[in-house]
Amino acid sequence: MAVYTDITEAELRAFLSDYDVGELQSYRGIAEGVENSNFLVHTTTGQFILTLYEKRVNRDDLPFFLGLMQYLAERGVSCPLPVHRRDGGTLGELAGRPAAMVTFLEGIWLRRPMPVHCAEVGRGLAEMHLAGEGFGLTRRNSLTLEDWRPLWEKSKDHADALDPALRPETEASLERLEAEWPRDLPEGVIHADLFPDNVFFLGDSLSGFIDFYFACNDALVYDLAVCLNAWCFERDHAFNLTKGRALLAAYNATRPLSDAEIAALPILSMGAALRFMLTRLYDWVMTPEGSLVVKKDPLEYLARMRFHKAIRSVTEYGLDR
Amino acid sequence: MAVYTDITEAELRAFLSDYDVGELQSYRGIAEGVENSNFLVHTTTGQFILTLYEKRVNRDDLPFFLGLMQYLAERGVSCPLPVHRRDGGTLGELAGRPAAMVTFLEGIWLRRPMPVHCAEVGRGLAEMHLAGEGFGLTRRNSLTLEDWRPLWEKSKDHADALDPALRPETEASLERLEAEWPRDLPEGVIHADLFPDNVFFLGDSLSGFIDFYFACNDALVYDLAVCLNAWCFERDHAFNLTKGRALLAAYNATRPLSDAEIAALPILSMGAALRFMLTRLYDWVMTPEGSLVVKKDPLEYLARMRFHKAIRSVTEYGLDR
Repeated sequence: MAVYTDITEAELRAFLSDYDVGELQSYRGIAEGVENSNFLVHTTTGQFILTLYEKRVNRDDLPFFLGLMQYLAERGVSCPLPVHRRDGGTLGELAGRPAAMVTFLEGIWLRRPMPVHCAEVGRGLAEMHLAGEGFGLTRRNSLTLEDWRPLWEKSKDHADALDPALRPETEASLERLEAEWPRDLPEGVIHADLFPDNVFFLGDSLSGFIDFYFACNDALVYDLAVCLNAWCFERDHAFNLTKGRALLAAYNATRPLSDAEIAALPILSMGAALRFMLTRLYDWVMTPEGSLVVKKDPLEYLARMRFHKAIRSVTEYGLDR
Repeated sequence: MAVYTDITEAELRAFLSDYDVGELQSYRGIAEGVENSNFLVHTTTGQFILTLYEKRVNRDDLPFFLGLMQYLAERGVSCPLPVHRRDGGTLGELAGRPAAMVTFLEGIWLRRPMPVHCAEVGRGLAEMHLAGEGFGLTRRNSLTLEDWRPLWEKSKDHADALDPALRPETEASLERLEAEWPRDLPEGVIHADLFPDNVFFLGDSLSGFIDFYFACNDALVYDLAVCLNAWCFERDHAFNLTKGRALLAAYNATRPLSDAEIAALPILSMGAALRFMLTRLYDWVMTPEGSLVVKKDPLEYLARMRFHKAIRSVTEYGLDR
């Protein structure tokens, strides 16, 4: 949660002068997102989120992310809509960073989602997958199977300090994932990071998705595996079967899962748990001691890996067969 | 710039249920202020800033701060207005912290103020001083002369690492300030922290003051001395005479300075420079290495101390006598 790059009024006015958005009224840095600098911008015509893309985002990927939001929004998915300049472009530069402005989405992200919200996410995710069909750009998932071992090599020496079980269990998981990773599942555009802080609600209804900066082309059901990890475990890392059932049933009702997708759910969920454990471990190692940035605990995902590894039937996720 | 305490929607809805502010639409943590957690809250009736007061704010001081904003706003000063609950109170509790909600103020704080803005601040500060007359509560300045030496004792051992001149010059300054600090100047309610990030503008016009969490009773002209330090030096720490003249003339035109106040300006300005040097040094020492919190350089205020110490006549500040 940080603003890495501050901007002056003069810089912002110059940037906005290329848009038909009225007069600048205020802008405030917002403490959301850990990768980029975000500002809430008020003008006489409305409210917008201005994002300055910092180092961790590859500039070449921005047309994919912005184009995807535009494509999904046009097809009825509630997500931020990139604002076009008068010359038609959506990607500009501000304070030496690539920068874009999107519409502000009302809504609240849920710190403690309930089963009803998991159902909303399942339905919404399936609708997003269907809406993404036909999107013309592609982007490789840069945090999938092939990327995990190199990431692990960079941080594994610090694993023991967290938990002596982390290293052997991760290495066993990597081997199993490399041997069993399914390859012929239906693919499409996935969000790939659909955690509660990326989903807004108004009351109990889903009001929108944000933060498409990990979106890519991959197995659709992998996105569902990410959501199982992100939405259906409790604070004590116990799986909540009611939430799992709500998520999966709602997804399946909107976009029916094939037998192959259902069979792949445990291994994909284990992979998703490993992926988040690895990036958290990497950030853990790289974030200086005492920093005010909240370090997310990698061990939460060791517990999830164990759960997925022990799954014998998808009924244990709450999916009725 | 941080949000130290996150809140859940349920907590926030419970808190808001005591207010007539309509339905919650969204809330976002904002990356402003380093002492407290701030959220921009949208409801169906408007926008508000919700503040959770963290440890560094003394709970007993909150009625003074909130009461002052209310008093000033009622007397025409543009500042956040505390929102009243149905029971009339303005101070509540949220997530175990004292919490209050104030109206959202449009406007932009200037990263690079020009002389025209310094004149606006001078006029606005004088108006605030006049408007504060008759406010019924009082609060001692907890960062004035008597407080500086204890603060210095806590961090002086780290001074040499920053600059070998810092320790002898600070000790000489403290001695001089203790000997010469003026005691019989007109007093009133002062803001005491009126840096550019606490003053909003719309275009070139001042649109409001925020962040009254250092406000207290003290010599009014001390507030002007803080502003000289905060608004009238350039990035290379050179004093900008045009800005000084603009600030002082505009203040003096609205609330004429007495001879004693004018004579006190150099010593008060030196004291204000020392005060900000000391708190920055303390934060510098206390903030862990590598933290993402921006450390403000104490040495900027060593340079200002030197400038004020060398002042022979207030004409050097741009005040025509």
